[in-house]
Amino acid sequence: MSRTELKDLGEFGLIDLLTKNIKHQNPSTLKGVGDDAAVLDHGKLKTVVSTDLLVEGIHFDLTYTPLKHLGYKSVVVNLSDIYAMNAQPKQITVSLAISNRFSVEAVHELYEGIHLACQVYGVDLIGGDTTSSIQGLTISVTALGEAEEQKIVYRKGAKKGDLLCVSGYLGGAYVGLQLLEREKQIFMEHPNMQPDLENKDYIVGRILKPEARKDIIDFFAKHSILPTSMIDISDGLSSDLIHLCMQSKVGAFVEENALPVAQETTMKALDFKLPPTTCALNGGEDYELLFTIHPDDAEKIKYSFDIRIIGEITDASDGINLHTTGGNIKELIAQGWQHH
Amino acid sequence: MSRTELKDLGEFGLIDLLTKNIKHQNPSTLKGVGDDAAVLDHGKLKTVVSTDLLVEGIHFDLTYTPLKHLGYKSVVVNLSDIYAMNAQPKQITVSLAISNRFSVEAVHELYEGIHLACQVYGVDLIGGDTTSSIQGLTISVTALGEAEEQKIVYRKGAKKGDLLCVSGYLGGAYVGLQLLEREKQIFMEHPNMQPDLENKDYIVGRILKPEARKDIIDFFAKHSILPTSMIDISDGLSSDLIHLCMQSKVGAFVEENALPVAQETTMKALDFKLPPTTCALNGGEDYELLFTIHPDDAEKIKYSFDIRIIGEITDASDGINLHTTGGNIKELIAQGWQHH
Repeated sequence: MSRTELKDLGEFGLIDLLTKNIKHQNPSTLKGVGDDAAVLDHGKLKTVVSTDLLVEGIHFDLTYTPLKHLGYKSVVVNLSDIYAMNAQPKQITVSLAISNRFSVEAVHELYEGIHLACQVYGVDLIGGDTTSSIQGLTISVTALGEAEEQKIVYRKGAKKGDLLCVSGYLGGAYVGLQLLEREKQIFMEHPNMQPDLENKDYIVGRILKPEARKDIIDFFAKHSILPTSMIDISDGLSSDLIHLCMQSKVGAFVEENALPVAQETTMKALDFKLPPTTCALNGGEDYELLFTIHPDDAEKIKYSFDIRIIGEITDASDGINLHTTGGNIKELIAQGWQHH
Repeated sequence: MSRTELKDLGEFGLIDLLTKNIKHQNPSTLKGVGDDAAVLDHGKLKTVVSTDLLVEGIHFDLTYTPLKHLGYKSVVVNLSDIYAMNAQPKQITVSLAISNRFSVEAVHELYEGIHLACQVYGVDLIGGDTTSSIQGLTISVTALGEAEEQKIVYRKGAKKGDLLCVSGYLGGAYVGLQLLEREKQIFMEHPNMQPDLENKDYIVGRILKPEARKDIIDFFAKHSILPTSMIDISDGLSSDLIHLCMQSKVGAFVEENALPVAQETTMKALDFKLPPTTCALNGGEDYELLFTIHPDDAEKIKYSFDIRIIGEITDASDGINLHTTGGNIKELIAQGWQHH
């Protein structure tokens, strides 16, 4: 029997392989694998479901991640997927596998962050499973949301001429991670010292305590904006734009000089000799929303200080490109199997 | 800061600690933590949600568990929770954390079992998350089901005088596990040999390829039976009966000579010098349904060859007891933090 290494296939190749033959059997399944969340028909409102698995050593490093922040973030990254469908999250389940390295107090701290996120975003913790692990901590969160069917926004609806928009600022989480990795050495030498990051930089907050963009979804509702397509930026702008374009069967260009990068991010990136544009395009974990709107809606977007038009949707044959500040055109590339 | 070990608090103590202050914020949350599944109000039908986390080395041992069986079982144990609410499962999400010890072919085999379970039980795989792990395999499954609100059966509805019933046979999975543990040594000496268990004993099938009791739920619907309370037997009859009694605020007795134990289980248990009654009471992983019915429904139960009356609900002050074949009364004890 042949053996193919997981890394040779890559995450997306593996998902394709495992899901290509799925046939739905239930009329209540409106949308399955392939978007930020699945969509179910349970009556008047539709149910939107998303799930994430976070593994110690892969997705987080407890050397510099306070447990309360980790709990908060575990919830937020799932809610971000529900918002990316233009839906409102309502419930979550949280499952934990915990080794005996963790005390009850540690688990309690983790849950404080989970409960805080529930409170801030108005979602209910409705269930889960708690079990031992041989090693390390694994957190599985599933979020359920609600939306009217005609308001749900998929990845697939972008059309040529639509404007490409992004919320907030990009690249901060990636630069924050680089900072923490460099500080890790200090923590390693003082294993009992928990990093005090409460009053640290903006960029550290971007990686340790990201927020999901509920405010943007609320802004859409208030101003009667229905994006034509949407995805949340978890893998990085390039990677997630490619997902959106593939599903919409379109191309796109991004204007480098329109990329929103916070000043703190730019300065620290330059300290680390990282091009800020690369951080913005490939950093990941920003949990901002990337979406497209019909050009007629451009006026409405102006009412938000936190949404920027960064490019435009083109024909698929034009590819997915960056228009650099220097006037060149560079093809955007996905980053493949990458964990943050 | 004090440190409490997880084992000192126990699984149920930990869950209590972590969930005692939950307040629901959404009207669509009908039932949260504390039953086999949560219940959500999404319109005409209610949505029932359950989730389980399965960890290599804790819940399964790949030395003797074929991956296809593992995939199948991961789904079935979740569906069992949905059936235990008297609901019909409709969708699942499956998340995997996989180390690079696993090949694509291995993951594919695991998914064959997942897809097979979806087909057999008529559920749709609608999403998930696939990620690396440092070590081992972790599987997180969330199941969503549907039910009419008045048909949903909770753990809490048992009343004094109700008859205590169980589907199928008990103890087989536990004895099967003992058999596999003893055979493990053989597999250890031949690491490349996958155990051929397709044609093995009934008891090996009970542990490696359990089925969820969809047929019992269908039988209830056909014969207009609405149990007063229900739970699926995952931790063992004693432990799960205690859950049911605690939530219903009642006591119960179980007649030892009414406990359904298959002949194969009894024989192999005796080989291993294990009392068959202990296997039936504390074995766990049988995924049979334990439920209570009003005495008026006793006639209807007789139409099933696979449901047995094993005892009766009493006042809480009477406790939860076994009436032994020898005429003694023994209090039933929960097994605490235990993983199978």
